[in-house]
This record gives sequence, C-alpha cells and structure tokens, in this order.
Amino acid sequence: MLAVRCSYWKKALRLYETAYSAKDQIKPSSQFAFVRRSLVNVVVRETQNVETQQKQCIDWNHLNFTDPLIISDRIYNLFLQQQQNMSYHKPEAKAVQELKDIAHRLRIHSITSTQASKSGHPTSCSSIAEIMSVLFFNTLRLNMKCPRDPSSDRFVLSKGHAAPILYAAWAEAGLFPVEELQNLRKIDSDLEGHPTPRLNFIDVGTGSLGQGVAVAAGMAYVGKNFDKADYRTYVVVGDGESAEGSIWESLHFAGHYKLDNLCVIFDVNRLGQSEPTSLQHQMDVYCKRLDAFGFNPLVVDGHDVEELCKAFYEAANTKNKPTAIIAKTYKGKFFPNIEDKDNWHGKPLGDKANEVIKHLEGLMVDACASPTIGPKTPTKLKQVPQVDITNVKLSSPPNYKLGQEVATRLAYGTALAKIAENNCRVIALDGDTKNSTYSEKIKKDYPDRYVECFIAEQNLVGVAIGAACRDRTIAFASTFATFFTRAFDQIRMGAISQTNVNFVGSHCGVSIGEDGPSQMGLEDIAMFRTIPGSTVFYPSDAVSCERAVELAANKEGICFIRTSRPNTAVLYKNDEPFVIGKGKVVKQSKKDQVLLIGAGITLYECLNAAAELEKCGINARVIDPFTVKPLDACLIIEHGTACGGRVVVVEDHYQQGGLGEAVLSALAEQRNFVVKHLYVPSVPRSGPATALIEMFGISAGHVVNAANALLEL
Amino acid sequence: MLAVRCSYWKKALRLYETAYSAKDQIKPSSQFAFVRRSLVNVVVRETQNVETQQKQCIDWNHLNFTDPLIISDRIYNLFLQQQQNMSYHKPEAKAVQELKDIAHRLRIHSITSTQASKSGHPTSCSSIAEIMSVLFFNTLRLNMKCPRDPSSDRFVLSKGHAAPILYAAWAEAGLFPVEELQNLRKIDSDLEGHPTPRLNFIDVGTGSLGQGVAVAAGMAYVGKNFDKADYRTYVVVGDGESAEGSIWESLHFAGHYKLDNLCVIFDVNRLGQSEPTSLQHQMDVYCKRLDAFGFNPLVVDGHDVEELCKAFYEAANTKNKPTAIIAKTYKGKFFPNIEDKDNWHGKPLGDKANEVIKHLEGLMVDACASPTIGPKTPTKLKQVPQVDITNVKLSSPPNYKLGQEVATRLAYGTALAKIAENNCRVIALDGDTKNSTYSEKIKKDYPDRYVECFIAEQNLVGVAIGAACRDRTIAFASTFATFFTRAFDQIRMGAISQTNVNFVGSHCGVSIGEDGPSQMGLEDIAMFRTIPGSTVFYPSDAVSCERAVELAANKEGICFIRTSRPNTAVLYKNDEPFVIGKGKVVKQSKKDQVLLIGAGITLYECLNAAAELEKCGINARVIDPFTVKPLDACLIIEHGTACGGRVVVVEDHYQQGGLGEAVLSALAEQRNFVVKHLYVPSVPRSGPATALIEMFGISAGHVVNAANALLEL
Repeated sequence: MLAVRCSYWKKALRLYETAYSAKDQIKPSSQFAFVRRSLVNVVVRETQNVETQQKQCIDWNHLNFTDPLIISDRIYNLFLQQQQNMSYHKPEAKAVQELKDIAHRLRIHSITSTQASKSGHPTSCSSIAEIMSVLFFNTLRLNMKCPRDPSSDRFVLSKGHAAPILYAAWAEAGLFPVEELQNLRKIDSDLEGHPTPRLNFIDVGTGSLGQGVAVAAGMAYVGKNFDKADYRTYVVVGDGESAEGSIWESLHFAGHYKLDNLCVIFDVNRLGQSEPTSLQHQMDVYCKRLDAFGFNPLVVDGHDVEELCKAFYEAANTKNKPTAIIAKTYKGKFFPNIEDKDNWHGKPLGDKANEVIKHLEGLMVDACASPTIGPKTPTKLKQVPQVDITNVKLSSPPNYKLGQEVATRLAYGTALAKIAENNCRVIALDGDTKNSTYSEKIKKDYPDRYVECFIAEQNLVGVAIGAACRDRTIAFASTFATFFTRAFDQIRMGAISQTNVNFVGSHCGVSIGEDGPSQMGLEDIAMFRTIPGSTVFYPSDAVSCERAVELAANKEGICFIRTSRPNTAVLYKNDEPFVIGKGKVVKQSKKDQVLLIGAGITLYECLNAAAELEKCGINARVIDPFTVKPLDACLIIEHGTACGGRVVVVEDHYQQGGLGEAVLSALAEQRNFVVKHLYVPSVPRSGPATALIEMFGISAGHVVNAANALLEL
Repeated sequence: MLAVRCSYWKKALRLYETAYSAKDQIKPSSQFAFVRRSLVNVVVRETQNVETQQKQCIDWNHLNFTDPLIISDRIYNLFLQQQQNMSYHKPEAKAVQELKDIAHRLRIHSITSTQASKSGHPTSCSSIAEIMSVLFFNTLRLNMKCPRDPSSDRFVLSKGHAAPILYAAWAEAGLFPVEELQNLRKIDSDLEGHPTPRLNFIDVGTGSLGQGVAVAAGMAYVGKNFDKADYRTYVVVGDGESAEGSIWESLHFAGHYKLDNLCVIFDVNRLGQSEPTSLQHQMDVYCKRLDAFGFNPLVVDGHDVEELCKAFYEAANTKNKPTAIIAKTYKGKFFPNIEDKDNWHGKPLGDKANEVIKHLEGLMVDACASPTIGPKTPTKLKQVPQVDITNVKLSSPPNYKLGQEVATRLAYGTALAKIAENNCRVIALDGDTKNSTYSEKIKKDYPDRYVECFIAEQNLVGVAIGAACRDRTIAFASTFATFFTRAFDQIRMGAISQTNVNFVGSHCGVSIGEDGPSQMGLEDIAMFRTIPGSTVFYPSDAVSCERAVELAANKEGICFIRTSRPNTAVLYKNDEPFVIGKGKVVKQSKKDQVLLIGAGITLYECLNAAAELEKCGINARVIDPFTVKPLDACLIIEHGTACGGRVVVVEDHYQQGGLGEAVLSALAEQRNFVVKHLYVPSVPRSGPATALIEMFGISAGHVVNAANALLEL
C-alpha cells in the first residue's frame, strides 16, 4: 500500500508539473516552487513511512489521476491551506469572547421575540447562534447604509423558519433598533414568520425548504461570471431540508461551475420537525456526499466560534470549488432541558423562557454590553459594474412576411438574441432543452450569457431567481412548459421573493403530437395564473411572440410566455404594437353572432371555424387575447356583447385554470353571457397533432359545433 | 498507515463478534465462523504487508466504526460476495452469444419502429440494448400470462423516451407479436412515445425524467415491508436525468430503508439532449456519490453482457443495501458514425437506417433466429399475500357533537387510523409534518403502516405512487397543501400512471396565520383540479372530513383532501351521508335573494354573513360544496336560480383555478347568473388568522358587502 501511495505522490508531482505549464491560471512560479517542494517533502516522508499529516477532506487515496487539472486543483488547494495555516490569524481572545456573547444575545432575542409572538422557532435559531454571530460579526462584509448594496456579500437563510435570529443579527449589527424585534409576526410589521424582501435586507423569500442553495448559487454565478466582483455568497441550510433533492441539484450545479465564491453552511442539529432527521449526526456521511458533489467539505463544531472563524477563512481562500461548512450543532443549544430534545420544534419556550434566558445570561461575560464589533464594511471590495436593466428593446423589429409559417418557440429564440444584443445583462438559462425551446440562439451569439442548468428544473428556476436579485440581470429561463410543474414551489416562492424572472415554456398542449402526454403542457397556464402579480403571455404568431419577449424583459413580477411547437402563420405586420393586457380582434364584421376566443394553435382553429361558419351564413368574431393574465376583459365584454353574449373559448390546455376560466372570471359579473368552453378533457395520447386536436375536441369542427349549439340556446 | 489499517481490521473483527451476538438476523454459526476466519486472514495478510484483494466499492478505509451494525453489514456483504464468487456461474458461451444477438435485435426494432413513426429516440435505446437483453432474457422473473402479476419482478424505465426498446423487449419475450412494434406512436396504438399503463405490462407512466427511482423505491418498500415477498424491482435511469434532485431524494430514501430488493441501473451514455451531460463518463464520480448515498455501487461496461449478468447476480445477493449498477455506455452504440456523436438525440436514423441495420445484422451470429431463451418465470418466487383494497370503511362512524370545535386536519388523522383499522393495506406517508397534518395518528396505532419520507415531497409522492401499484396498498400521502406544489410534476404524471393515491394537504390559506405566505396553500385547489380524473374534497367540518377520507380510500384516480389548520364547528350529524359530487345546502329559506358558497373556513364566514344580512332583512342561502371537483353544478344552478341568479363565492385561495372558477365553469352555459368572487388577491403576510381573513377580503363582512353589491346590480 505504501509503495502505491508513494508512486501516487510521485505521479502527482509529475502531473502537477505538466498541468502547471498547461494551465495558466495557476499562480506565479514562486508558488509553483513551493508546491513542488511540498510534494517532494511528502514523497520523502512517505518513503520513510512517516504518517503524512492528512488534510481534512482531501482524500488522497481517491484522487482521480486521469485529469491533471483536477489533481493540480487539489494540490493547489492543499498548498493554499498550508499557506492559510501560516497566514491565518486566530481572532484575539477578547473578540472570541465577544462572538460567544453575541451568539447568546441572539439566542435571547430569538426567545423573547417568539415569546411576544406566541409562535416561532427559537430552538431552530439556537442551533445557528454561533454561525450567525461569526458570520455577521466576523466574516460578512455588509453595507449597513444599503443592506442590498450590489457590491457587498450576500446572505441567504435557506432554513427560513430561523427568521428571528436573522432579524436579531441585523438588529444587533445596527440596522434597526433591537426593540423592533418584539414586533415579530405582527400584522403591521415586516418581521414576518419567514423572511421576505418586504424587508430591505432580504433578497429572497424563504420558508419553503430546500430552495436557498439554488438562489445563492445564482447569485454566486453572477458574481463570478457577470459582475466578476469580490462579493461572496453564504447560505445557511438546515439538515432537515438537506433531504430535498433541490439542494442536491444546486450543490451539483455549484460544484460543476466551480463557484468558489459560494459557501454553504449545513446546520446539522439532528432534529427535524416531527422526529430526528434520517442522518442525525452522521457527519461523515454529509462529508462524503459533499465531497462527491464537488465541494470542499469542512466538518466543524458549529458551536465553536474559533472553529467557525477558521472555516470561513478557509472557505474564502479555497479556489475552484465551493466550500461546505458542515456544522455539528444541537437544536436548542444552551437551553437547559430543551437542548437536543424531541418535541421542541416550532414552539416558543413558554414558561421555561425566563429560566433559559437567565441561564444564557450566566454564560455571558457581560450580558448588558452591546457588541463593540460589527460587520466588516465592503469598502475594500471591488465595486460591481453599473448596469441598467431598464428599457430593453429588440435590437431590430420583427421581420416576417404575413402568412409565413414560423413556430412561436423559434420566434422566442430570435427575440432573445435580439434583446441580448440590446442589453448586456440579458441572460438565458435552460434545462438541456435549448435546441427545443430555441434558447440556444442566445448561446450562439453570446455564449457567456447562456447558463446550462442541465435536467434539473428546480435548480434552473432557483438559479434564475438568484441571478435576477439586486437587479444584476434580466433572466429568461426556459424548458418545456409542462416541466415547469417540477418547479411550481420555486415559482410560487419567486412571487414572494418579488422576482422579475421570465419563464418561457415550449411544447404546450396536444399539438406537440407523437411524444405523448408526459411532454404536453396542459396545466401550465393554470399554474402561472395562480402566481400573484404574474403576467401570462400566450402569443399566437412570431410577431406577437417577439413583442412578448420584449415586454416581458421590462415587466416587473414573474412573466410566463407560452410557446408552441408547430409552425403557425404570421398574422400581424412587423410594426403591429402590442401591450400587456390588450387583446386583438383578428376578424370581425357588423353582423357577428358569436365571439370565438383562441390562442396559439386554437386561434387558427377559431379562424378556420369562422370561415366554415361563414359558409353557413353565420358570422363569427375572433379575438386573440395575447395575454391571458391580465386578460383584456373590456375587449371581451365589448365584443361579446356585440355578439349577443355568445362566446366560444377553445384552448390546448385542460379545463381548469386556463384561458377558458380566465374568460369566465372576466365575465363573472356580467349577466346575459353564455360561454362554451372547449378544452382537452382527459389524458391525451401519442398521435399526429391534427388528429389529436380533433380527437380531444379543440379543432375548428368542434368550434363550429359549439357556435351552432350556442346559437340554438 | 498499515498499522492503522491492521488495527481497523482487528477492531472490525471484535465488532463483528459483538454485533453477531446482538443482531439475530445474521445467519447461522457456520457463516459466522467463515466470516471470522476471513477477517483473521485479512488481518494476517495486512500484517505481512501483502496487498488485500480490494472488493470493488467496499471502501474499507472509510468504514464508520461507530456503529457495529454497519460494520457487520459490510462484512456480511463481503462474505456474501465471496460466496458469490464461489457460487456464481457464468452463463455459457451460447447463452452469452444469444444475449448479444438479442441486444442487436432490440436495437434493430428500435430503429425500424422509429423509422415507421418518423420520430422517437433510437440512439437512447441503443445505449441500453445489452442492459435490456440481460434483464429480460437472463435476470427478470416475469409471468408472461399476467405481466403485472403481483408476485413477479417489477421493471420501471425511468428514461421513458427509450420506450421503443422496452416494447421490443416485451415483444421479443413473447408478450405480443413483434410486428406490432411498427405501430409505435400511432394514434390507435397504445405503444405511445413514452410508456403508459394503457399497456398491460407498464406500471407507471414515465417520460418526465427523474421520477422512476421514487416509484421503484415505493414498489420495493412494499415488497420488503408489506408483501414480504421475493420479487425484486429494477429501474433504468438515464445519466441526463440523474441531474434531477428527485433522483437523489429517492436514492437517499432507498439507502435509508436498506431496500436491498431494489436495483437502480444508471445508463451513463455521456450525451444529453442538447449537449454532453455535466459528468459525462466520470464513472468514479457516480460511484462515489452512490456509495455516499448508501448504495452498493457496481461500475460495469454496459455493453458487456457477461459483466451485466454478474452484476445483477451480485445485486440480488447483496443484503441490507440497494445496488446501483453504473453502466458505462455509448449513445447510439454500434451505429456507425452515430455512436457517441452529438446531435442524434430524439431522431430516427432516416436514410442511415438501412446501413446501420445491415451493420448490426453483421454483428449477429444468426440475424434471423428468434431467441431460444426467455424471461425466467416467477414460479419459484414466494407468492404475495392476497389483499382486498376495496370497500374500505371507517371502523366506527364519526363521533362528534354538533358545534364542537375540531380542525379538519385532526379529523383526517382520526379517520386515517379508523380506515387503517378496517383494512390492513391502508398506509400513510408524510414528509416530516406528521404532527401538523395528524398523519401521526396512524403511526401511533400501526407504526409499520406509516412511512416517513422526511422533507422530500417529490419522493414522497413518487413512493406513494409506487406503493399503490398493482393494488398492493391504499396510500395516503400528506404534507402542507402548498408543499405539494413541489411535486406537481409527479402528481401530473400520477394521473398518466392511473394511480389511486390520495393526497391530503393541511394548512391551507391565510387562516394559518403567523407563519406567513410561504406556508399557506393558496394554489393547491387550482393544481389538483387540473389533474385529469381527480377528485378534490374540501371538507368544512370534522364529520364531512372523516367521510371524505373514507370516500377517497375507495375512489379511483387521484384524490386530494384539503384540510384546515384552525378549529371549525361541527356542522353535520354523525350519521349524515356524504357523496362525491354532492354538495349540501346548509342554510336556506323560501325568501332567499342571494346564494353564498364557501368551503373550509369561508363556509363559516358565509354563515356569519347570512346572519348579518338577515339582520338587514336580506335572506341568503348557503351551500357547502363538499367536493370542488366534481362540483355539484346541478345544486348550484338550482339554488342559484332560486336566489335570482345572484351568487357570492368566497375562498381562502388565490383567484385562479379554485372554488370560484369551478363555480364559474359550472355556470358557464347559464345565462342570467352574476357571480361575485372573493379570494386572496395578493401575496399575504404574517398576522393573526382573523386579521388576515379581514385584510385579504374573505371575511363575513366582505361577503355581506358583495351580497349587497349584487342586490344593487
């Protein structure tokens, strides 16, 4: 074994030398010499059978020697860590004591504020008290005058139920008076049960677990690749929420893109809501998993402020991979008879509060003194570039011929590349469907502005939300419309986060044809309509689709653009203006007896139906709503009334929550309307698009029948 | 290092001896002696510095010596593997050749069927040709007369786009004529683009990626813990879809519950849809990750039938942990000029097809011969117990007093325990919220019938779907209503899978109070209404909630029961009958002028509003819909008409897709109705429930105003 290890080291040495010459981002030659010397020393020591001082989590036995860059990264990190051991200065004893005392102060605030609100999670706060103390009073570089200063560090509390200690940390750091903490969870206070950006120091809403790492990774990706700035991103994750697959999607993403400006802190406090977590305190399992997912994993005692200070220092000095600080903690730490006990999740301490506070005060050197230390200021940080993400325009107007057959998904790609030309902060993200959604068009023109998120839609959405924070980018995230159902929770939380991300879903409805129901978006409009403040575009031709993209880029709140797979004829002139909430009457006469409303492929079915009806002497008016939310209620009421209150709505979507119910909502308070709603009534199947449109009742023929039925009522 | 390793081995030996005496499921004493001897041998060899023959993926350096059971498991598995090496018999040369030939036949079918359909994924089929050949003609034990025989092995194709080769395998195995494969993707064939249970040999629909492991884990959990049978579950996962977090949730679940009857095969073919996967052929990374997630990881050449046969043998003989077969493969394997090349995802081979088929035929010993081997029959397998999951009843009727204050979530727990008493196949699953949803009540009475899925809702839903397959269990999955948004894609696919799983979502709406918007279900009705064939219960009191649970247990298709956090008064007598699709008129008079519709807490707001209105001389009728889907349209039309067509609907849900739009859909074809819809109009906040109900416009006062406004229209 020893011989093997020695030969490994010798090989490592050779590889390092080779990689050094091939990989220019590896440092000046004095460092090279140092690393080389270190390696030689290791080889010598191994040969003499002296135990090498094993660096934590550098698993020398399992190095992948097939890739010289990986081995050089690892060796380089070893080198950096050795340097750190020389350059790292422990905080002085006084500062250490103060960090300990601050942790207890934060604990006490968490107790008193949840006592006042009679609800909340003091024990979940207590497990991260030292982590928060060290982060806010030793590590983070924050601008107290502008808590969301784009140049300063980011902090995301993924375990949002620990909000009271987050608020306490900001208050103790001086952002607002600590007395305000007593307003926790009151209806007239923004110190809500879980953090939201109603507070000026919060970037994203958390509280639905497992979402913080994705947004933090999005922030870090922007910091490293677009802002190219010094700010770092920290995210605190609970061990319970580590069971969420979304966490592992995001860890993989961060590892893959080597986001070394990201630090994920795992609060392994052993206890979930209703029972112990599945892994409890198996720190070695966390360590193995994080190592395997491309992180630099550091296992620490999460209640030891000195260990935490050092770990954060190491994290900041580890290059080419993100760091995971895996903190062994106890839920309700330092709460006598509560610490590490079951059945204390989400409960104020009640009549035990005073006794616990007294105990905590007894642990402090001076329970009354305010902190003499505070967050570092970000003055030494490189300022981010000034960016303007307003007034985005297509770099050139749509350029089609009337009647030309173009899929709206293709028009999306074209428009995306055009707005990217107009504004350097337009970016796109996709989940390995870029050749179907046509987001690949931005990649072709601006490779750096495209972020491949692979097949992991939850992370795709979370990264987009993170990337759009602090107005750093205009993010467009695309995949098949139906696959956004995978990230409904993230999108829902996006609204709470006040995000402006734009979502583009292709392959809607049965009109995709042979791939079958698993690939058909038939509930996407329902989903995006429920999102508060959302805008839902459903463009029917290429011209309106390009304008939808332009409008979405400038619109606040979540936008969704539903694009179709098949080609559809261009209906509008290239200079046709489009406005959110304004539909278009695409066919009308003075004698119209029925109003037909369709969008996407069903708009064309409506037009064909109108032509059929005309042959029988029935005139039909046709409306293209353009946006399903907000829907142009006035237009529909006006023209529906003109057609005798007879309306047919037809959509390539299930019955519930789509265009049809949007029309019904618009007409709810109108008497004398009667609406026939055609929709996909059951799980579709594989087959040619035209056959499916017929089979599932949304073809022109069905529209004709519905119109005739209405006229007979 | 050597000394350390030797002492580890010695310690292992001692621990094994200790664990042996403590853990009775470990085998007879001759095996004990063998293991002990093996360990002694290892120690001796180590001491002599002779390289120990390292067994693949038993990472002796990283054994967790804190748990004697873990070490004994590992040692026991080593022992089993050593036994295998003795007892494993390689297939004979003729059989090997035939497995190779069958793989090529399956390839050819995949090519010709996708040529006929002019769409599909032949290259994604080709990478798993040997895997499918070995599984179907060497490993799986299938009953060809009853492909979904509950006693036989399960197979799930998670990468559903490889459907053509799955169909080909069943056809070649004799289930149906191979000629039928040419009907792939035709509208009158059930050989759809992605598999669905319309085919009698498919358990679940796949095609939305990353969902197969969860359902397979659900099947395996049932096999091990409820059926206690011999059948094994196999699932083939694509490397692209391995980026889905849902996969890692399920791997963790399978590892945690030691599902050694589960075998997950990773088809690592290096190429995604639009570009190479992030990990490409880094087999070592997959191996590390799977090891860290509690699997027995076996890296194999996925095109070597002999290696595959042996790996499946090892998988079947590995105890206490599931096995992952990590197959290095090539997309389009054996397709000249296509193999391992970009831009061949999801494309028939077109004019290259004939040439490729010719090449494949050239690789076969006899391209014309049909297989002489076939799937093993499950005759030697232990038969599963006969179970009857029909006609489930509450073991005792509801037992409340009128006016008693009981939360419907609590009534859910009570009813769940009652139906569990009635039928031994009622099981419940939860995501660490059992003390909030009250699913803990089944755990208290029947600990083995509760499956803790921890905070991983996608896996929770997938496992429930798997557990309900082949009518083995009646599964109830619960969490907060809003957290089901996390699994919308799984639920959507559940409908395609024809599942009968029941979902129970607690903590709906603003009425949860101080926890704030991240925890409030405000889009759950919209989501579950879109699911084809679903039933959506919204019980308002404890009696109707218990009956909802009983009805859901017997209802086909997906059921959703929305429960509320606050206590509500019991409205119905204990013997009140409830029927799906039938609402209740809870207040009426002959002079009613307006119809009020509410559910859950808003039903009580309607009753209070009716009392208020009565004071002003306005009589209001009140309806409790009981099920939102199907909605009792007749009842609403009848009583709405009686009230002059004036309807107020009020719900603790967003505007879109909920009760209000369901009512509007029911009234779509009725003239002379006017509906005021009250709903939560924007992102809510933290605060007392009553204050939020008032602030967000769904209180009795708002209902009164809406009714008055209608009367003035």
